[in-house]
Amino acid sequence: MGPLQIKELLQKAPEGQAVTLKGWVRTKRESKNAIFIALNDGSTIHNIQAVAEPGQFAETIIQQVTTGACLRIEGSLVASLGAGQSVEVKITELEVYGTADPEKYPLQPKKHSLEFLREIAHLRPRTNTFGAVLRVRHALAFAVHQYFNDKGFFYLHTPIITASDAEGAGEMFQVTTLDLDKPPRDEQGAIDYKEDFFGREANLTVSGQLEGELGAMALSKIYTFGPTFRAENSNTTRHLAEFWMIEPEMAFFELKDNMDLAEDFVKTVIGYAMEHCKDDLAFLQKRLEEEEKSKPQKDRSLPLLEKLSFVVDNPFERLTYTEAIDILLNSKPHKEKKFQYPVGWGIDLSSEHERYLVEKHFKKPVILTNYPREIKSFYMKLDEDGKTVRAMDVLFPGIGEIIGGSQREENYDKLLERVKEIGIDPQNVWWYLETRQFGTAPHSGFGLGFERLVLFVTGMGNIRDVIPFPRFPKSAEF
Amino acid sequence: MGPLQIKELLQKAPEGQAVTLKGWVRTKRESKNAIFIALNDGSTIHNIQAVAEPGQFAETIIQQVTTGACLRIEGSLVASLGAGQSVEVKITELEVYGTADPEKYPLQPKKHSLEFLREIAHLRPRTNTFGAVLRVRHALAFAVHQYFNDKGFFYLHTPIITASDAEGAGEMFQVTTLDLDKPPRDEQGAIDYKEDFFGREANLTVSGQLEGELGAMALSKIYTFGPTFRAENSNTTRHLAEFWMIEPEMAFFELKDNMDLAEDFVKTVIGYAMEHCKDDLAFLQKRLEEEEKSKPQKDRSLPLLEKLSFVVDNPFERLTYTEAIDILLNSKPHKEKKFQYPVGWGIDLSSEHERYLVEKHFKKPVILTNYPREIKSFYMKLDEDGKTVRAMDVLFPGIGEIIGGSQREENYDKLLERVKEIGIDPQNVWWYLETRQFGTAPHSGFGLGFERLVLFVTGMGNIRDVIPFPRFPKSAEF
Repeated sequence: MGPLQIKELLQKAPEGQAVTLKGWVRTKRESKNAIFIALNDGSTIHNIQAVAEPGQFAETIIQQVTTGACLRIEGSLVASLGAGQSVEVKITELEVYGTADPEKYPLQPKKHSLEFLREIAHLRPRTNTFGAVLRVRHALAFAVHQYFNDKGFFYLHTPIITASDAEGAGEMFQVTTLDLDKPPRDEQGAIDYKEDFFGREANLTVSGQLEGELGAMALSKIYTFGPTFRAENSNTTRHLAEFWMIEPEMAFFELKDNMDLAEDFVKTVIGYAMEHCKDDLAFLQKRLEEEEKSKPQKDRSLPLLEKLSFVVDNPFERLTYTEAIDILLNSKPHKEKKFQYPVGWGIDLSSEHERYLVEKHFKKPVILTNYPREIKSFYMKLDEDGKTVRAMDVLFPGIGEIIGGSQREENYDKLLERVKEIGIDPQNVWWYLETRQFGTAPHSGFGLGFERLVLFVTGMGNIRDVIPFPRFPKSAEF
Repeated sequence: MGPLQIKELLQKAPEGQAVTLKGWVRTKRESKNAIFIALNDGSTIHNIQAVAEPGQFAETIIQQVTTGACLRIEGSLVASLGAGQSVEVKITELEVYGTADPEKYPLQPKKHSLEFLREIAHLRPRTNTFGAVLRVRHALAFAVHQYFNDKGFFYLHTPIITASDAEGAGEMFQVTTLDLDKPPRDEQGAIDYKEDFFGREANLTVSGQLEGELGAMALSKIYTFGPTFRAENSNTTRHLAEFWMIEPEMAFFELKDNMDLAEDFVKTVIGYAMEHCKDDLAFLQKRLEEEEKSKPQKDRSLPLLEKLSFVVDNPFERLTYTEAIDILLNSKPHKEKKFQYPVGWGIDLSSEHERYLVEKHFKKPVILTNYPREIKSFYMKLDEDGKTVRAMDVLFPGIGEIIGGSQREENYDKLLERVKEIGIDPQNVWWYLETRQFGTAPHSGFGLGFERLVLFVTGMGNIRDVIPFPRFPKSAEF
């Protein structure tokens, strides 16, 4: 079905065999003796070179062969004498499926800014950079499914539309079929949500965790991999209104098992991408080097592949929040008052603190555990001291928190107390509480923002550039 | 990490080795000489039998071992003398992680109706039926990813929130952060969507196809696998408000390639489930037999595995819509006026017509092609005769349409005409139209409703029972 991909063709031994190429023109170069067409079909970062003789095709045809045009080429695969490729295709037949008027087509063979490309997100997958990013994204997604499947996890589709707002993880999008212009109202004049599609207020999920736990208390090991939403009005390079989350939940896992899993998981999927996306990562490494050329040496990142190897090859440093605070209190930037935010037991670590620990002090990924209960979620298991909870955050260089997780509170009374403490109506989460009444068990889980992972692995600088069609304030185009 | 799964333990040779079991009690049986506990951890439909001697543990402990309680058991794996299992565990240590008060726990060891279980969707994954369904669902989802990855497709995450309403595939859910009680209004008194999160009206996607095509015109072969939404007020056994769709899109595929792919794809993923979910499917087959016992023989389904083999082993019948209409016009039910709906060229086939073709006439899956343009979507490629389009529907026994697809209209002028014809403002889909202006190519794709596939493979009767937390009118619980 369909033509052989250029990726496959490039690996074949050239024996003059007949081949068909279908793809888009990246560049055309005409010399006295030949016309060279670089064709790409998105299967690989590499183009295949197709060669015609001058006069072999009508000038009107050759004129249509411009950057972005789509071609079908029949020819023979031969060894290439030119530099930069081992094979090329000697063209015998050439059909232009679709032209791309150079006056109008925005993707000309020159450097385009990422900002500009964001405005033409419908075309940017045709560029080298976005082709590479999307292929790496695919490889990472596949690695996630393969990893969990291999380990006996079940993929659980938790709901996207939800009436529960228990997570308190931020602002939510409302989902409705009511007529906003004239919504139905009850006798008190309030919006009558009984008339709404679900008979109550409904929102887009901010996390599948609570439902994921329901699955884990039946199937032992589950994971989610689906879209989640935050209606936060933040225009940063690290936030999206719509993003994909991976959330494994495991019965019978305690905090240490959870850490072991998180570390093994993230190393495995990054390792998978390194093995399966060599060419794309080499390209992205070069792209990053180019981009950082203007920066002073000390502000440049590690070469991309070096950074990835470093994560995959070294054990993550594990320490408690309390130990981390001690390190920060004894640190040079703290003593020299170089930190912007104050340091002390009880604070929510800010980005500068996390970066100091990861990039300066330990110089490797760090797992921080046992945070103060006040700064963590209600569902995290209380430690014996009653002050800290069995939370864990995995911190990565350059990116900060990439994974957040915890052992969950499995004790019904303690969980109920926490629910009330933070002002959730227990009746809203009756089903969540019931898992602690019926056959409760120690269990754990974590969440990984998929785009953060793609950002880290591709070395891109803005999260809007690692998802095909980013959603952020004032933007839902395409 | 974590304990060995019961699925793995059941496959071990019993050599008296020390093992740890963690799981939930399905049943407990006490005899004079022994206490038998059937434990399940959701990794398999099968329980493992654990055996204690009377008096070995305090009566207060044994009383807590009731259906639904969660246990940790240490013991040795030995050959079982009892019928029904080859190994069992001789208990040396027993800890009750969590009790399940028999007076309150709803899942007692007796038959529960599917309707009742739907109301306790947070607990139903702990039943044999839903455990099996969710494991099969997982296997099918994994098979989907593996299939496309093997074939060189890239997984593309198309947006969930979208401002485009081009599909016209039905009622949509609105997504908003406006205050419904007091929405901002412009000078004309209309809702001021400039104030909404995205600066315009936004909805939940009904299909990722249009964006999928953008990916295919860059990467050649992509697929989506994500949630889609319909705000239709339909309470049937075949519709959900939130469901998962798989939508491959392929550059350079024409209608025949599209059919070949659809057939190969659906056969491969069903075959994967048959190979990897033998025990669950055997259980579900028995469940279906039980359920249909009260029906007259002629109304019963084929045994589940027979039905699946039949689909996997036989070529699908391929014919045009026009040929299908001829068959229907010459059919006995038509001549005897047994069809409820009239038959004639131009009609949208109803379920009774599709079922006649699949179940009575051809007795196998059918692919119908080249439907009248009037009853199909605007983006389908017009045939030469100008009357029909290159659509294809794959029809399955019992389930009707499981896949709908087409070759896409790649001609800019024809597509624009169709867009206008059905009343879409071309400016709303400028980005979609541009793919036909810049490097257009023949291309095709299709959509498969994932829950329809799970329904077919599990033999369940209601689509609400093949997704963990179904969303339908007046229901968004959990």
